[in-house]
Amino acid sequence: MGISSLDKTFELYQLSKAGKLCVPAMNVNDSVTKQKFDNLYCCRESILDGLKRTTDVMFGGKQVVVCGYGEVGKGCCAALKALGAIVYITEIDPICALQACMDGFRVVKLNEVIRQVDVVITCTGNKNVVTREHLDRMKNSCIVCNMGHSNTEIDVTSLRTPELTWERVRSQVDHVIWPDGKRVVLLAEGRLLNLSCSTVPTFVLSITATTQALALIELYNAPEGRYKQDVYLLPKKMDEYVASLHLPSFDAHLTELTDDQAKYLGLNKNGPFKPNYYR
Amino acid sequence: MGISSLDKTFELYQLSKAGKLCVPAMNVNDSVTKQKFDNLYCCRESILDGLKRTTDVMFGGKQVVVCGYGEVGKGCCAALKALGAIVYITEIDPICALQACMDGFRVVKLNEVIRQVDVVITCTGNKNVVTREHLDRMKNSCIVCNMGHSNTEIDVTSLRTPELTWERVRSQVDHVIWPDGKRVVLLAEGRLLNLSCSTVPTFVLSITATTQALALIELYNAPEGRYKQDVYLLPKKMDEYVASLHLPSFDAHLTELTDDQAKYLGLNKNGPFKPNYYR
Amino acid sequence: MGISSLDKTFELYQLSKAGKLCVPAMNVNDSVTKQKFDNLYCCRESILDGLKRTTDVMFGGKQVVVCGYGEVGKGCCAALKALGAIVYITEIDPICALQACMDGFRVVKLNEVIRQVDVVITCTGNKNVVTREHLDRMKNSCIVCNMGHSNTEIDVTSLRTPELTWERVRSQVDHVIWPDGKRVVLLAEGRLLNLSCSTVPTFVLSITATTQALALIELYNAPEGRYKQDVYLLPKKMDEYVASLHLPSFDAHLTELTDDQAKYLGLNKNGPFKPNYYR
Amino acid sequence: MGISSLDKTFELYQLSKAGKLCVPAMNVNDSVTKQKFDNLYCCRESILDGLKRTTDVMFGGKQVVVCGYGEVGKGCCAALKALGAIVYITEIDPICALQACMDGFRVVKLNEVIRQVDVVITCTGNKNVVTREHLDRMKNSCIVCNMGHSNTEIDVTSLRTPELTWERVRSQVDHVIWPDGKRVVLLAEGRLLNLSCSTVPTFVLSITATTQALALIELYNAPEGRYKQDVYLLPKKMDEYVASLHLPSFDAHLTELTDDQAKYLGLNKNGPFKPNYYR
Repeated sequence: MGISSLDKTFELYQLSKAGKLCVPAMNVNDSVTKQKFDNLYCCRESILDGLKRTTDVMFGGKQVVVCGYGEVGKGCCAALKALGAIVYITEIDPICALQACMDGFRVVKLNEVIRQVDVVITCTGNKNVVTREHLDRMKNSCIVCNMGHSNTEIDVTSLRTPELTWERVRSQVDHVIWPDGKRVVLLAEGRLLNLSCSTVPTFVLSITATTQALALIELYNAPEGRYKQDVYLLPKKMDEYVASLHLPSFDAHLTELTDDQAKYLGLNKNGPFKPNYYR
Repeated sequence: MGISSLDKTFELYQLSKAGKLCVPAMNVNDSVTKQKFDNLYCCRESILDGLKRTTDVMFGGKQVVVCGYGEVGKGCCAALKALGAIVYITEIDPICALQACMDGFRVVKLNEVIRQVDVVITCTGNKNVVTREHLDRMKNSCIVCNMGHSNTEIDVTSLRTPELTWERVRSQVDHVIWPDGKRVVLLAEGRLLNLSCSTVPTFVLSITATTQALALIELYNAPEGRYKQDVYLLPKKMDEYVASLHLPSFDAHLTELTDDQAKYLGLNKNGPFKPNYYR
Repeated sequence: MGISSLDKTFELYQLSKAGKLCVPAMNVNDSVTKQKFDNLYCCRESILDGLKRTTDVMFGGKQVVVCGYGEVGKGCCAALKALGAIVYITEIDPICALQACMDGFRVVKLNEVIRQVDVVITCTGNKNVVTREHLDRMKNSCIVCNMGHSNTEIDVTSLRTPELTWERVRSQVDHVIWPDGKRVVLLAEGRLLNLSCSTVPTFVLSITATTQALALIELYNAPEGRYKQDVYLLPKKMDEYVASLHLPSFDAHLTELTDDQAKYLGLNKNGPFKPNYYR
Repeated sequence: MGISSLDKTFELYQLSKAGKLCVPAMNVNDSVTKQKFDNLYCCRESILDGLKRTTDVMFGGKQVVVCGYGEVGKGCCAALKALGAIVYITEIDPICALQACMDGFRVVKLNEVIRQVDVVITCTGNKNVVTREHLDRMKNSCIVCNMGHSNTEIDVTSLRTPELTWERVRSQVDHVIWPDGKRVVLLAEGRLLNLSCSTVPTFVLSITATTQALALIELYNAPEGRYKQDVYLLPKKMDEYVASLHLPSFDAHLTELTDDQAKYLGLNKNGPFKPNYYR
């Protein structure tokens, strides 16, 4: 399902809802290992990498607005904050907004900060989050990029008008120039920065690929009737198995439950260790 | 269900499994706002507060082992790391162990580090995580405390033997003294440090109490048949409502979806914004 | 020279300038170990401790302004940021201001943020940094405290007027109440929070006391004429000696220079390792 | 004096000591703005950038040893820790070693960790910090690079022997292959990673260039006799001027002293604000 499987997962659920899904499917995108590693931990690194390789921008002291505080947004914000950027968040979901507050970010509407920020990053899974109106109000040299999905988060189409000049200054980097000389630095023409302008560590690929492979094996081996024509989450135990396969590369040593402890917790000593809804 | 409702939640599920639950119940403990605020964000502060008030220990440079990297453990570790402690983790769950790795902590068995650490903190929900054998091997002045649940995580009973002397040096602080003069500093006699030795901010109480009140209102108002004699998770929308009630105290400004965006995402403009399994 | 020896150091230099210093004196306050440990590292912990013990405030999501970004300010800001506060800085010195920018803090004038912040902390060594005018504009429940020096940083005298009511709500905590009911939470009546409301770890006391003792020994043992009636900085080598005495408590292992390396660097293998101006 | 002016500064002091310096010289390398910006803040970003561009390594969970905890080392360690690496430090100077402890890093001898680390980074200004013996003991795929000075920190010469095979896998990246198949990943053949494999932000160049220009202007304009044939530190006031010129790009607002405050502090309202020895 690829690295950016958010869109495809979305399609799966729509097919299922419409009764048009003709085979069982596994939503790997929302398994814990995929969510945390591919999204949170990987984006924490690729936002820095993508911005540096394309613009050589210094992060220290920069004002940045990140649209969306899901796993991808959390990763981007943690990295940028750690390197000395001042980060603002926009959110539609009050739970994520409250998390942003507790993590030390001001939650604002995009309009409130658009004139002052040096970098705008979208991580929403939504469309038209950055509109032409926002782009018109950005300051000179503002960098705009998309870490979310697809190429819809920034309304790039609205920039393809006669009064604006596009100048390709480097691979994946365009200056869009306003009549008054203001330049907005658009990365990857609004497509995904992490796929276009940075690399994905092999470690993360390994986790995601293992998850996908195990999902296929499970669907193939499952006894008749376990899975219907619907979308399923990866069984917790498989998710744990993916993680356990990757621990040795960190020389991490798991603790085993004693019989007594397993009984106390009502768990099998070999897992699963958490309820399915645990994240 | 109180601040430390892990134990009671556990009992609820056991009653339910045994078919002995005679009313519908709501597992508030696992709602997102409870998990994140009461556990993660609150413990991030109370671990520091509890240790300081009881021992005046300096965190900088101290070696600490935290048993368990769930929400409570994550909060404790983040705070201690931020203040310059060197933190080791023990875990039974490979997913949490892998998260610990990615967050920059070495995952070890307790035996590997027990001789060298200055502080031992349990956050497991388990029993006998710190045994007499571990206590025997700790170095002089090692601080031992429990942030997890109940009073079972540290085997305190094993310390009530004739060869060890107990000296109460301050309220909630005992020195347990070995025949060779070694002292282990036991906090709150192994009961919960955050409840015994630190305070719970009113903000967190407000979130938890609101969640509990809404759960009761939901159960009371629900149409006949919506809830059976089982344990339910708080509906996502209520969880979001709790969060939204607390945003104004941070002067946080939510973004609203346009009609077009809501349609694109297949969401109601008023939420819920995430699937139930989202954490 | 005590923990808060800034004031006394200042007096020493004034005496010296006025030709009234009748013995040699050692400015221990500005030695590296004192500056970093007593100020930066100790205040990083005591700001949290002092605020918690007096007010039980939750740090996550709080807006805080810290006046002064010297060593004390840097310590306070690092701790508060790490625990999820949003921190603003005021500064008079452009170098410190630029450091604050690079560390991810907005540098503002106090007036710009005084209406919105939840906590005001002074760390300037200056007087009347927080004036009655500022106090008048703070929002209800704003906490005000001094981590800098003396009791002059906050203009507490201006609050002792008939129209304001003082209510002692706890030891070291006064509510100052405006006619409209607004309350400002004043800690330690504007005296030093870290001395009044938190503890100083023995480790830090040990470093400072060792530095002071070595300074006295040096002055006592110095050959006639090495020191005149002036103020001196602690010799670098002694500063390094203080540090080396405290390394074993962290089980830290120093690397020794080879003869070849010492020659290459033009250093004595036993130090001093840095020029005197190094911080 | 270029970005890496440590070596040249060193030469200046040697010339001066030998009485061979025939003009006054200004040690710009040790001015506060140069030290903090060019070294600390710039290296904080370029270590990540340099490693990513050459190796695509994931930082999360990696074990890294950084040799030297001066400004460059502090920058490297802060960045790597923030991105989830587990960092060890080696140091010869007890003050820097104690700082490393307080910042949450274990201080070790290189031999203690060389078998387990994934990355080795030198920031010492010394020579032969990483020897052939260390290289022989590294594990397969260990990355080795130099952020310090010159090309002497890693004993690269010792690797140019018949039993080892060099394989250039990419620009600036060599695999050195042991007879048993073990590969060590050597970056930039042991020359400076930040100059060879990452970019220097224009902001940092601006600070350094401004400092150098002002130093030359000062030497040129100085009245006869102010400077002799010696090495001087940049006057504090100029250092502050450099900083103040760069504040507007962060929209940072300096606070001005009132007359009363300036008198209280014994300072000129326009600076310098700190003694010369302040860092």
